This record gives sequence, structure tokens and C-alpha cells, in this order.
Amino acid sequence: MSRYWSDIVHRLTPYVPGEQPAVAHPVKLNTNENPYPPSPRVLEAIRQELGAAGESLRCYPDPSARKLRETVAAYHGIHAEQVFAGNGSDEVLALTFQALLKHDKPLLFPDITYSFYPTYARLFEIDYRTIALDNSFAIHVDDYAAPNGGVLFPNPNAPTGRPLPLADIERLVARNTESVVVIDEAYVDFGAESAIALIDRYPNLLVIQTVSKSRSLAGMRVGFAFGHPELIDALNRVKDSFNSYPLDRLAQVAAIAAYEDDAWFRGNCAKVIASRERLAAGLTALGFEVVPSAANLLFARHDGYDAATLVARLREKEIFVRHFKVARIDQHLRISVGTDAECGILLDALRDIFRGYVG
Amino acid sequence: MSRYWSDIVHRLTPYVPGEQPAVAHPVKLNTNENPYPPSPRVLEAIRQELGAAGESLRCYPDPSARKLRETVAAYHGIHAEQVFAGNGSDEVLALTFQALLKHDKPLLFPDITYSFYPTYARLFEIDYRTIALDNSFAIHVDDYAAPNGGVLFPNPNAPTGRPLPLADIERLVARNTESVVVIDEAYVDFGAESAIALIDRYPNLLVIQTVSKSRSLAGMRVGFAFGHPELIDALNRVKDSFNSYPLDRLAQVAAIAAYEDDAWFRGNCAKVIASRERLAAGLTALGFEVVPSAANLLFARHDGYDAATLVARLREKEIFVRHFKVARIDQHLRISVGTDAECGILLDALRDIFRGYVG
Repeated sequence: MSRYWSDIVHRLTPYVPGEQPAVAHPVKLNTNENPYPPSPRVLEAIRQELGAAGESLRCYPDPSARKLRETVAAYHGIHAEQVFAGNGSDEVLALTFQALLKHDKPLLFPDITYSFYPTYARLFEIDYRTIALDNSFAIHVDDYAAPNGGVLFPNPNAPTGRPLPLADIERLVARNTESVVVIDEAYVDFGAESAIALIDRYPNLLVIQTVSKSRSLAGMRVGFAFGHPELIDALNRVKDSFNSYPLDRLAQVAAIAAYEDDAWFRGNCAKVIASRERLAAGLTALGFEVVPSAANLLFARHDGYDAATLVARLREKEIFVRHFKVARIDQHLRISVGTDAECGILLDALRDIFRGYVG
Repeated sequence: MSRYWSDIVHRLTPYVPGEQPAVAHPVKLNTNENPYPPSPRVLEAIRQELGAAGESLRCYPDPSARKLRETVAAYHGIHAEQVFAGNGSDEVLALTFQALLKHDKPLLFPDITYSFYPTYARLFEIDYRTIALDNSFAIHVDDYAAPNGGVLFPNPNAPTGRPLPLADIERLVARNTESVVVIDEAYVDFGAESAIALIDRYPNLLVIQTVSKSRSLAGMRVGFAFGHPELIDALNRVKDSFNSYPLDRLAQVAAIAAYEDDAWFRGNCAKVIASRERLAAGLTALGFEVVPSAANLLFARHDGYDAATLVARLREKEIFVRHFKVARIDQHLRISVGTDAECGILLDALRDIFRGYVG
């Protein structure tokens, strides 16, 4: 608290990102990172940009990230004018809140969802209302048929991993013509259907993606929005009033190369999906109730064991999973899908903890 | 224009960054980049972070950039809690406007200064008032002794390059106790005195710097704010409500390495300063009036030649300088200091243009 702060600062509730453990070899299943490294082409592209002396680093990057947007547009069969690039999907979401979701009517999003959403709303002083998921953590799009200044949810949802069929999203978008529907597809490549296929038909649909999960580039901070050029224009206007160059030179070439190696991307997604199904079976066999997931994470609870206690016991073994002290889900663990070896270590550790458990 | 836009979007005037020319070998003196590459240690640090397979890129970076902040704090003899790191000084400035400069009373900054300032003010709906520079483009700090919600200017000023003595800044900061004074030191390393020396004594002083100019890393997007921990806390609270991870892994290690090679930094600054003085003498000999500069740029006008015409003629020769169509300075050129060879090409080109000039 300080008299020098702008008023808004006193009213913020900053987002708390997952822990980056300081231990040497953690089993890190707490931030939904991809267990596999990025494509070798990413390395090659960064090395080529660096050259012998890093000469290009002295110059500003392309503020519009044109080549990156063209590459990603071609990948999805759309136009570069339908693509916005930002510093990770978190920055893209922040700019979206500011540019497209601040209206007189409240923004609608699920009660259980990405915990950054209410933080953005407070930062930009956007009125919002949460819509309850059902008891199986499913979204029902008909629940969003209320007057609103925007609708937003992830597909698959976070932290549950539960996907929504594209037909449901289209029904919502087709009906909700007075405001923008934002589908946050951070996890879509692990088994859900992308709404990018719909952007040519619906000027009120914005789809957000990231290279952090399925393209193994969380360390490089690149995210996208896809939508009608008028929506993209709004994002560019706010971005160019905030920071002209959010993507550095190496991030731009890294992301381009990641999109150019589709086989690597598909191979890693398939491996993660297979590991997820094995991990889900293993957790179920241990008595966990596991939410059906189309993401690189599982959301699971066990009636016999307190979630916070399990997190602490796993932590002692240098295994990190995430837990949210939030109503309705405070007995759930969010477990990122690692390699089969990491998933095996987790299951062994849980067995070990259950054997010696004193509740 | 779209009904889907938030109201604010209609009222923005986005910043226009300097052109990134598409030609193969431009003489690029339009965006104040350093003509020399970053330290070889920067390359080495990036290569080390990449390793054999880029394994670390799959993981999120440290959201607090602790090691980078510790390195820069040690360099300046201050504490990491007095340092904020962001995605270039533009992002740091944007967060500063939002976190510290929005108050009932107007923000004060010079009429001729970094043209991003009014853009930020409009984005965050901050009332501001400009204070006229004198006819020699000097700032007089006594002109800022009016009720205000903040005071902001670059030292040296942009786009003039004109520096202000530290004693003047201290006088202003000591007197202006009710709001924050922000000194934007993007160009300070080329000959002005940093106000970082004052932050231990004044809780209302925030100093902003960047690695883009003097450390040859415009391509990597890293900037800093230095000040009392309460001011830094405000920046962190807004940053963590906007984007947790604005600095990617390679940007963090690159900036650390740049601070670890002080000899490289000092050597390049000395070369740029020497070239600046030679270029100033050359321009003066051609009849230009040159503003005294402590930056890596010169601000100059010629009574005999129209500035916009000169820019266009230089452009035909693939020489790029910057020109602002703004009252009081529309007859000035802003010329970045390049290598001696580049400065020589510019002077030759101007001689050539003057010989064939038809006004």
C-alpha cells in the first residue's frame, strides 16, 4: 500500500503462476508443460537467427510479427489479417479483455475455469458474472443465453480438462450475436475440436491458442488470437498503445519453426494423449475419480485422501502437482501429463503414500 | 470501428514505431539501434540455455526474472527488490502509467518528448498536461512545480537527445513529494547521469532503463524500472494481473550476460559517443543546426532544406532517418548514430542532395 499507487493497484488480486521448483530434478507435473522438447527445427531456426555474432539482436524485431502470422495463417488455411500474435496466450487474453470484453453488460465465464480470468476483469474494471459448471464439471452453453458483454471459456476447460463439442460452441456463437465469444484453446491440440474452423462464418468469434503446451515452447512466450479482421484490429490497436514489440526475434523464429514441423507436433500430442489415458487408468485403479480430459492434464479427486495433504506428501518426494484452494474443487488435484516414466513415478509415490497414510 | 470493440478502442491513437526497411542493406539510422552487436557472452549464454536439444524451452521461464534482477541490482549496487524487469522499456512504461501515474491530478510531461507517452495516457484514460520545452529544447524543472499526479520525462530527452543535469532532477524529486517522478533513461548510457544513484533517498523516484540501445539488444525486449520497493511492488501487482511471464528464457539469459560484460558495453558506448561527435561536426559543417546530444542520436535542422524532402531523398538512397510531422519539430531530422562508415555515407548523401537540390 502506498499513496503513490494508482487506485486500481489497491484492488488487484494478482494471478499466482504454478511454482517453478528449485530442486535439481523435480517430477514437474504442476504447470502443464509438454514433457517433450520442441522440434529440432526450432533450435536450428534460433541458431540461424543468431548467426556467428548475434548481429541481428541489436535490431528491433518486426513489431507486427508478419512472417509468423503468415506461417500460422497458412497452417490453418486462413489469412494473416485474421491472426494476432502476442507474448503468450496470457498477454493475448489480457489484450482481449481490454479491447473486446469491456461493456456495460457483464462478461460471462464459468465458476470453475482459468483463474486468471477474474484477475483480468479486476485489472480492467470489467463487470463479470460466473456461470456454474454442472456437477460433472460440464459447460452447458444454454446457460450463457443471458444478456452479456462477452462470453469466455477454455475448450477444453481448465483446470478440469473437460472438452465441449464444437457443435455446442457453434450454437452459442450463432445465437450470441451482440457480443464476442472467446474460446481459449490453450489445450485444444490434445483432443478437442478447434473453433478456428468457424471464424470465417462468425464475426463475433475469437479463438485463442498458444505454443506453450502442444508445441513445447512455454519458455518462449508466443500466443495467438484468430478471428474476424475487425476483432484483430482492436487487439492491434490496444497492443500498439501498450507495447509495440512484445515478441522478440528469437521467439518469432522459434514459433515459425514449430509450425513448420507438423510431424513433431503431432507425434508429441499423440504420445501425451496415450500417456494421459494410461495415467487416467492408473489413477482410477488407485480409487481416484478422474474427470474425462482432452487436455495434457488430469483433474482428479480421491474420497479417501485430503488433496492438500497429498500435494504436500508428493512435494516431499519432489513430485509437483497443482491444487486450488477454491470452493467445489479444493479436494481435486490437477496433474499435468508427463512422460510415461514420470506418470509411473507419480503412481508409485501415490501407492506409497496411501500405504502409510494417517488421515 | 465495430460494435464489438470496447469503448476505449475507438479513442486510441496507437504509437507508430520506426520503419523496419525491407531492403537488403539499408543504412538504418531511424530507430536508434546500436550499430555494434551484443557481447559475445550474450551468444554464449543463449547457446548454453539452448543446450543440445532446447530441452529447457518446453518449460516456463522464471516469472519474476529473479536472477536477472539480482544481476542488474548488483551491477548498480542496489537490491533486487528495487528492480522490476519487463518486456522492453515500452512495456515497463505502460505498466508504470497504469500502476503509478493514474490520479485525479494531471500527469505532466514535455510537449516535445517520446511520442508514446500520450498514447499510454489515452489507453489508461490518464489526464495529462504537456509543459513546453524552451526554444533550445531544454527542460526547466521549475516548470513542473504545479499540482500533478506524476511527472515524466526522458533523460536525455527524446527525440532531441538533450540531457538534464542530475542536480536539476534531484531538485525536482525532492520538491515533488506528493507524486512519482519517472525518469526514462533509455539513452542515459551515451553521456547523461543516471538518477539510479538517488533511489535510496527518494521513495517517489522511478528510473526506467533498457538493454535495447547501449547493450545492443533491441531484438530481445528487456527493460527495467528502479525505485523504492513499494513502487516496484505496484508494478509487480499490475504485471501479475496482466501477463505473468513477459520475459522468455532466452531474453533473461541474454540480458544477464550483457550486464556481465561491462567492458564490451563501455567500449561500444565510447565508440558511439565518438561517432556522434564526428557526425555532429559533419552536419554542422553542412549548415545543420544540431541540438547538443547525450544520446545515440542527433536532432538537427537545416534552414535551407525541407526536412520531409530530405527524408524522402535519403530514402531513395536506402538511407533511413526519422522525421516527426509534429508542431515545433517538423523541420528536424532525428538521426541515429551509426558506425563511422554509416555516418560517412549519410554525410556524403546529404552533400549530394544539396548539390542537386531544387527546393
